[in-house]
Amino acid sequence: MIIPKESHLTPEQETELEAIASEGGIKLMKITGETRQIFLMIGDERNEEMVSRITGLDYIDRVDMVMDPYRLMSRTSGLAGHKVRLNGKIVGDGFTVIAGQCTIDPKNPNYFFETAQAVKEAGADCLRGGVWKPRTSPYAFQGDVKSLEILMGAKARTGLPVDTEVMDPEQLDAVLQHDVDVLQIGTRNALNYGLLKEVGRKIRGRKTAVLLKRSMHMGKIEEFIMAAEYVVAQGNPNIMLCPRGTTPAMDGYRNHPDECIAPLLKERTWAPVVVDPSHSVGKASYVPFACMAAASYGADGIIVETHVSPRHGIGDDPKQAVTPDTLARIIRDCRAIAAMQKSHMGHLHVTAHG
Amino acid sequence: MIIPKESHLTPEQETELEAIASEGGIKLMKITGETRQIFLMIGDERNEEMVSRITGLDYIDRVDMVMDPYRLMSRTSGLAGHKVRLNGKIVGDGFTVIAGQCTIDPKNPNYFFETAQAVKEAGADCLRGGVWKPRTSPYAFQGDVKSLEILMGAKARTGLPVDTEVMDPEQLDAVLQHDVDVLQIGTRNALNYGLLKEVGRKIRGRKTAVLLKRSMHMGKIEEFIMAAEYVVAQGNPNIMLCPRGTTPAMDGYRNHPDECIAPLLKERTWAPVVVDPSHSVGKASYVPFACMAAASYGADGIIVETHVSPRHGIGDDPKQAVTPDTLARIIRDCRAIAAMQKSHMGHLHVTAHG
Amino acid sequence: MIIPKESHLTPEQETELEAIASEGGIKLMKITGETRQIFLMIGDERNEEMVSRITGLDYIDRVDMVMDPYRLMSRTSGLAGHKVRLNGKIVGDGFTVIAGQCTIDPKNPNYFFETAQAVKEAGADCLRGGVWKPRTSPYAFQGDVKSLEILMGAKARTGLPVDTEVMDPEQLDAVLQHDVDVLQIGTRNALNYGLLKEVGRKIRGRKTAVLLKRSMHMGKIEEFIMAAEYVVAQGNPNIMLCPRGTTPAMDGYRNHPDECIAPLLKERTWAPVVVDPSHSVGKASYVPFACMAAASYGADGIIVETHVSPRHGIGDDPKQAVTPDTLARIIRDCRAIAAMQKSHMGHLHVTAHG
Amino acid sequence: MIIPKESHLTPEQETELEAIASEGGIKLMKITGETRQIFLMIGDERNEEMVSRITGLDYIDRVDMVMDPYRLMSRTSGLAGHKVRLNGKIVGDGFTVIAGQCTIDPKNPNYFFETAQAVKEAGADCLRGGVWKPRTSPYAFQGDVKSLEILMGAKARTGLPVDTEVMDPEQLDAVLQHDVDVLQIGTRNALNYGLLKEVGRKIRGRKTAVLLKRSMHMGKIEEFIMAAEYVVAQGNPNIMLCPRGTTPAMDGYRNHPDECIAPLLKERTWAPVVVDPSHSVGKASYVPFACMAAASYGADGIIVETHVSPRHGIGDDPKQAVTPDTLARIIRDCRAIAAMQKSHMGHLHVTAHG
Repeated sequence: MIIPKESHLTPEQETELEAIASEGGIKLMKITGETRQIFLMIGDERNEEMVSRITGLDYIDRVDMVMDPYRLMSRTSGLAGHKVRLNGKIVGDGFTVIAGQCTIDPKNPNYFFETAQAVKEAGADCLRGGVWKPRTSPYAFQGDVKSLEILMGAKARTGLPVDTEVMDPEQLDAVLQHDVDVLQIGTRNALNYGLLKEVGRKIRGRKTAVLLKRSMHMGKIEEFIMAAEYVVAQGNPNIMLCPRGTTPAMDGYRNHPDECIAPLLKERTWAPVVVDPSHSVGKASYVPFACMAAASYGADGIIVETHVSPRHGIGDDPKQAVTPDTLARIIRDCRAIAAMQKSHMGHLHVTAHG
Repeated sequence: MIIPKESHLTPEQETELEAIASEGGIKLMKITGETRQIFLMIGDERNEEMVSRITGLDYIDRVDMVMDPYRLMSRTSGLAGHKVRLNGKIVGDGFTVIAGQCTIDPKNPNYFFETAQAVKEAGADCLRGGVWKPRTSPYAFQGDVKSLEILMGAKARTGLPVDTEVMDPEQLDAVLQHDVDVLQIGTRNALNYGLLKEVGRKIRGRKTAVLLKRSMHMGKIEEFIMAAEYVVAQGNPNIMLCPRGTTPAMDGYRNHPDECIAPLLKERTWAPVVVDPSHSVGKASYVPFACMAAASYGADGIIVETHVSPRHGIGDDPKQAVTPDTLARIIRDCRAIAAMQKSHMGHLHVTAHG
Repeated sequence: MIIPKESHLTPEQETELEAIASEGGIKLMKITGETRQIFLMIGDERNEEMVSRITGLDYIDRVDMVMDPYRLMSRTSGLAGHKVRLNGKIVGDGFTVIAGQCTIDPKNPNYFFETAQAVKEAGADCLRGGVWKPRTSPYAFQGDVKSLEILMGAKARTGLPVDTEVMDPEQLDAVLQHDVDVLQIGTRNALNYGLLKEVGRKIRGRKTAVLLKRSMHMGKIEEFIMAAEYVVAQGNPNIMLCPRGTTPAMDGYRNHPDECIAPLLKERTWAPVVVDPSHSVGKASYVPFACMAAASYGADGIIVETHVSPRHGIGDDPKQAVTPDTLARIIRDCRAIAAMQKSHMGHLHVTAHG
Repeated sequence: MIIPKESHLTPEQETELEAIASEGGIKLMKITGETRQIFLMIGDERNEEMVSRITGLDYIDRVDMVMDPYRLMSRTSGLAGHKVRLNGKIVGDGFTVIAGQCTIDPKNPNYFFETAQAVKEAGADCLRGGVWKPRTSPYAFQGDVKSLEILMGAKARTGLPVDTEVMDPEQLDAVLQHDVDVLQIGTRNALNYGLLKEVGRKIRGRKTAVLLKRSMHMGKIEEFIMAAEYVVAQGNPNIMLCPRGTTPAMDGYRNHPDECIAPLLKERTWAPVVVDPSHSVGKASYVPFACMAAASYGADGIIVETHVSPRHGIGDDPKQAVTPDTLARIIRDCRAIAAMQKSHMGHLHVTAHG
């Protein structure tokens, strides 16, 4: 990984750098973080002669040989200070809340418009709305591209950034024709490396962020982070990590809640952690508790299924969605807990280094 | 289950009741709750003639045929209003905290005395101290009965009620020669029905309570509650249910944290839930977060390994124990979160019935 | 599902059938089995008027409302008699063996040519050779399209049908330019419904078969069969189900062996079951035992990593591949065990119906 | 561990040895294997002076510092050549079969007598019959000591050695008043170290063997072997290791079959492995396949629930028991497969060392 001295190189400097790399049998991938650019070396980066030539350039600070299997996601990577933003606001500052419907009902767009307005008033930072739906059965309702226009309509009305899931290259292309802020990659695609790379490639140079759900089956923390590495290695580091419960389910819940993974992720990577309590517990009455637990474990935010009238929802909403009133109480409590959690972190820091 | 009209029967009434039951081929087990006594029918309780004779007694309110596999632990049982107390204070009122060392070091009793005083000052309600230790290897240090006297000494000095683990009938007899307030049954014995019955039998008629840890392997909620039923069916209903993490471990923790089980237990039983975050996460720096998550999920309390000087601890303390300072902050934050959680419960109630 | 009286309809009959369905709001998907064609109704098949018009056609036998969530894969489906063939031989007749290298080394093609010849002599029915390799790290070697030509060269030399894995639409297109007999879908793509449909669509009307690996995380049998349904519902029913071990691993193996799933699959579907013992146990010395266990549980065949010189292999071969000598012994023993297993099945049948 | 030169020491030699050990702060436990005795050192065995005094005795061969956590069960232990016998026949020679009812019906002893005779004729080596039954509910039928006399009656009639489960010290004492050959320790007690030690202590100096079931929850192989170490460390090394399936269950079976663990156990210990297929799969029609798979993986034997009339059985028999006819076919096939498996082992040996 090549770390320049300046935040951005001039075109001439980039050209020179690429020429040296190319002679050394290396391709460069430029990763554009918020405040600086770094260059990932694709190929054998242990070519000593090439490395010493690059290190010798006066606009280059250093060449790092990152030993973590995740070179970019690691806390020791040159990207470590990168911040992901939604509408200009840093994810994690003051506890970030994404809320909205699991699935937009293309036949009843008003519910979505009302939900959008209500989650904004409740204090949410971003609006979620599902257009397509992965289904175990090939014969079940799989969504409707018309919902994409409803989503964009809600963005126009509320001014909230929007989040939606994409499941294949065709959906990705459809979504990228609109100004969608967050692309969600679902739990069933968390090991679909082809899709991860395709998403990464298509958002290169855009402000778009990715919310990567943890595979419902992922055991190892590293496997989750490596999946994020696939996206980020294509050039856009705007990624959020989203625990959403694992299988087999805890008896009585939809999944086995995994908000407790947040501190483990934050020790290893710089990326924000946004927990999905709705899918973890799978029942609206438990959702507030799971949100508060996510804040307790130091998550940077939550993504919560919310509907103005859950029983009129489709997809998972009738079971899982909370009302905007409940969402407002969740946000108030989670922000208070997040402050307590940060204070515990501060004490840990003092104990360790003070 | 026979529910009398009065909180307690006279000896003559009891004798009459037993005689009728005996003619019907039934043995009665008297369960003495805080404010009333009920009688469990051991045998075929569907003997209609007998049931109608009992129902006809003027001091009997009714005979319930509880259909839950756990007749006594169920929220619909005649015991449903029973409260477990520590030092007279109801477990759950204001969030109950049990704290102290994993294992008392018989060679350095002063650490335990200091820890006892410090957890009292930090606001704990009960003092834990391990005398024996279950070990996977038959050749490892397994504890020392001398530590029992240290435990009782700390009780005398601080006035705190005390909790310790028992693993076999011999240890049980040793402990019951002292005024130990809480008998802890460990995760490896959670399916040891012989021990569960023996403990239940030996504390019949005493004020002693049992803290029953969940088996590290228990999947089904029902299996946990049935284990508690084994104890309570012997006559003393002072039981607390203690989730403590399951295996296989969440990658990075000692176990897979399971504080999220609290609402599921509280829906099915009347018993207080006291979570053990220390064993769940297995590392002191994570313990405050797991404690706060337990409060978020509505636990009635926590049991936290605490040591005035963790690195001088034995057993799990060097890794897991928090300091009394951290404990004080945990207690303050958990009490605030517990109040938020109750407020969410209140809103749920209004939504459902209002 | 529409079952015609004849094995194949005339073009005029098909056109008439499609017109009636279209008026009823239904699309038809033709599934071409070995000896007959059936028509799957996509849409609401409970349109009674339409169904009675179709049933009235003199070339139609009946319209089945299959209640299984897997309409085509079910033992009660009109496809139930379908046989999958390799080189004309029914999969399962005499225990089918697919063998060859995990990964073809594009720099050393001779090892693959020698392995191909050797597995043929050992008695294998089909040759496997991996061209690409799914990797957890985006920076690891991911395969080389040159290996595809080596694979086809080995087919030409030995006359064996060939099997290779495809992971994304690009690889699929590359493979379908050659006469590959079996497309393998790997464990990480077993829930990638986009790829499953794409594969199904592209092999419609071809003799190509699919070997669908079970997801390493799949718990429910039904989830596995539904994934197969995604492929088959595109029109080509040549599918084999491949258990390959699950995670978390059995301590000491690479995965948790799951050959025991074979009877459960065969009770529910008509598709042949071909077990992958190499990935289950992950070490060559255990592979013969896992193969014999697969035959014991009634598998129709096995797919075994084999290499003439395992230590010169790449990918998983150095650890997992057996030698052709061992393969020959495995084939001999598995065929004997498969005969014993069938005899037990026969006795069961007599007991149940005799 | 002290290994004498002679198979047995004289009383004088033993006394001398104990005196030296005692001075070194060590207690000795004598383990009496089939052909020799060894002495386990309880305490700090790294006392160099003591070790050199013992090594200097002319009747002592050597003092081994076994580094395995299981000193006695390890293949490198002085017990490694120990053979467990049933009725004088080495367990594993020619594939050992234990068969009989899950639970003896005290009201219908004739079924058990007929079953006993039938399993003998089918070729079984030992007769199982359950007297008590561990139950999740404290209110369920838990067995009847009268069945113990029925078991001994069947032993007298058939001459077969007998096996029965014990769950607590009381049952253990009852069983040891009779000439029971195999004490079975059930899956729920596999971590009940108190019971393991008690059983070990009570069979010291007897020919009785123990069949130790694997905990349904045991993940690590080592945990299983350590449990066996608890028994053997009391002095009697006649132990058999019994995999019986784990939870969570494979969807469609009663448990997750684990016969595949046999090679992993046999690599680490010298003890025979006897698989329980009946509890693994939990349905009679699958049992033959699971038995054959156990033989495929190199088990030394199986324990199979068998009943002359399964539908008249109690406990698990109506679902799980096979008939004696099926048992005879199982025995014939397993013996053939066991021979094939040994031949593969032979080839492995040649490949590795030849």
